[in-house]
Amino acid sequence: MDDSNAKLTPLSELGEFGLIEKLTGDIKSKNHSTLFGIGDDAAVIKPEKSMLTVVSKDLLLEGVHFDLMYTPLKHLGYKTAVVNFSDIAAMNGKPKQLLVGIGVGAKFSVEAIDEIYSGIKSACEIYGVDLIGGDTTSSSSGLVISATVIGEVKKADIVYRNGAKPNDLICVSGDLGGAYMGLLILEREKKAFQADPNIQPDLGQHDYILQRQLKPEARTTVVDILAKEKIIPTSMIDVSDGLASDVMHLCKSSKTGCVISEEKIPIDQTTYELAKEFNIVPTVAALNGGEDYELLFTVSQDDYEKVKDIPEITIIGYMTDASEGERLITSDENSIDLVAQGWDALKKKI
Amino acid sequence: MDDSNAKLTPLSELGEFGLIEKLTGDIKSKNHSTLFGIGDDAAVIKPEKSMLTVVSKDLLLEGVHFDLMYTPLKHLGYKTAVVNFSDIAAMNGKPKQLLVGIGVGAKFSVEAIDEIYSGIKSACEIYGVDLIGGDTTSSSSGLVISATVIGEVKKADIVYRNGAKPNDLICVSGDLGGAYMGLLILEREKKAFQADPNIQPDLGQHDYILQRQLKPEARTTVVDILAKEKIIPTSMIDVSDGLASDVMHLCKSSKTGCVISEEKIPIDQTTYELAKEFNIVPTVAALNGGEDYELLFTVSQDDYEKVKDIPEITIIGYMTDASEGERLITSDENSIDLVAQGWDALKKKI
Repeated sequence: MDDSNAKLTPLSELGEFGLIEKLTGDIKSKNHSTLFGIGDDAAVIKPEKSMLTVVSKDLLLEGVHFDLMYTPLKHLGYKTAVVNFSDIAAMNGKPKQLLVGIGVGAKFSVEAIDEIYSGIKSACEIYGVDLIGGDTTSSSSGLVISATVIGEVKKADIVYRNGAKPNDLICVSGDLGGAYMGLLILEREKKAFQADPNIQPDLGQHDYILQRQLKPEARTTVVDILAKEKIIPTSMIDVSDGLASDVMHLCKSSKTGCVISEEKIPIDQTTYELAKEFNIVPTVAALNGGEDYELLFTVSQDDYEKVKDIPEITIIGYMTDASEGERLITSDENSIDLVAQGWDALKKKI
Repeated sequence: MDDSNAKLTPLSELGEFGLIEKLTGDIKSKNHSTLFGIGDDAAVIKPEKSMLTVVSKDLLLEGVHFDLMYTPLKHLGYKTAVVNFSDIAAMNGKPKQLLVGIGVGAKFSVEAIDEIYSGIKSACEIYGVDLIGGDTTSSSSGLVISATVIGEVKKADIVYRNGAKPNDLICVSGDLGGAYMGLLILEREKKAFQADPNIQPDLGQHDYILQRQLKPEARTTVVDILAKEKIIPTSMIDVSDGLASDVMHLCKSSKTGCVISEEKIPIDQTTYELAKEFNIVPTVAALNGGEDYELLFTVSQDDYEKVKDIPEITIIGYMTDASEGERLITSDENSIDLVAQGWDALKKKI
């Protein structure tokens, strides 16, 4: 990847401590609650009074969660941070601190790691998060990125997966299926390139869906909208595995069933057209694609008036009694069982 | 490793969510501050009033940080947890919550991951820590373990690396160099086995040092002793890279120099004898070996009377003005520059 450039700095030149200093030396904490960041055995946080601390971690492995052949390192750093922030948004909270650990193989240069960090720092800047921990170690195999995010949420505002009741409205932010279509485009161009390296990748007109895959955003803005409208969802999750799998997580935790209306599922026009090109039913990309990082949540029927006109939010169904199962009303008005074929790294790859 | 046993369960049989449920279904949180553990987008902690939150993470990679040829999986899980707890002890705090992410290759069975988890759970049980996050994903290469620990410490009791002053006494808990000698024994027996698989490993009489390497402990008991004796160190770190490297971290952060007395460095008799067998100067194992996870700290001269008779603690030198550099008084009374050759995963392996 970087072999063509003779000026790159080998990692051995800096060593572990030198590298950490180079990558994190310019970081300044901004949040009130961050007392001490990088540079000691542990980072120190002074939790805000009356706030709960929410914490989540993700492990991203080369060849499983990302393909360096088409993933720019800066985007990879950005996505690593953002998918963690999304977990905090899914609790109705705001991310405040991030810790990152990176394992890199011999082929990596200091400049390559710097690229990953620039993506991480850019995400932290945009979302108002402090990078308070970062260590880098060698990896004898692929690139490994591990991130932990810490966020906060008022005790009265926290939303779990398990609070939905029958008749609650099922809502989703933004649109779905785009990230999966982006992946299909990237995989197609990779295959074309492998078959004939002279073929230039055809990515031009697919900006939106490529961004959905390579540089997703966390819907912390939706958390703000809900707060402004004084709506506290009864349950919430972020769409990482696909709408079907994730709504079933809500049902399982809340001990409910659900009815999803296929024609209500929000799908962007570019996603729609590209799905047709790939001979995929667009809603299948939404139901099973995953990685959209939109917020999927339920609200009481009492909140219908508040929710119905928010442009960022679509009502796609309602919760039912658990005995009624998890159902999809198709566009031709059949009622079928919802089936989760979500992205399951273990079943697929092992 | 497990190929001989036909009854092992392939990971694909359970899938990601089934596996998480199997591994973590029996976990019950005990700490007051743990509101919600595994099973949502994020774990939820209610920080104790007047306490600071301390957080640290570690990434352990097969072939870099551990060798599965001689590392029992249960010990690996235990060590993963404990090295994280040690980081919290080094802030004068107590570990309370742990999150673990594991990436495993196709050769792993459910039973093998269960072994790793049994070690993690055992450490959590012993140290009073709640396992609040655990996810498992496939790895296309080696075993990857990532852990994040969250701890708490009273605001008045927190100890950073940067508070030491000239004349402060340098203290260390327990004894040093054992973990490194344990590693040398394991590497020796591995080579003997590779040369002739019929040779049985000769590990019998080395229980103590093997335990130091394979199943270390975090010195939270020393944190208790310091609290009981009303001693608040002026700076503290855990010995993970080796005494030389780690005391230099304290000096750098505190902007001091130091004088370490070689003959004061605490070394166990078995470490001493084994070092001789390997033709290594025992104090070199202590200075550069690392992974002992003892606490290295400084206290004011005013605390001398309190510290001097605590059996778990040895005074090995004192801080000086930064201009005097970092010095080692050798056993034959020469004063030489302290040189850190600590275990640096990046410089060594890349």
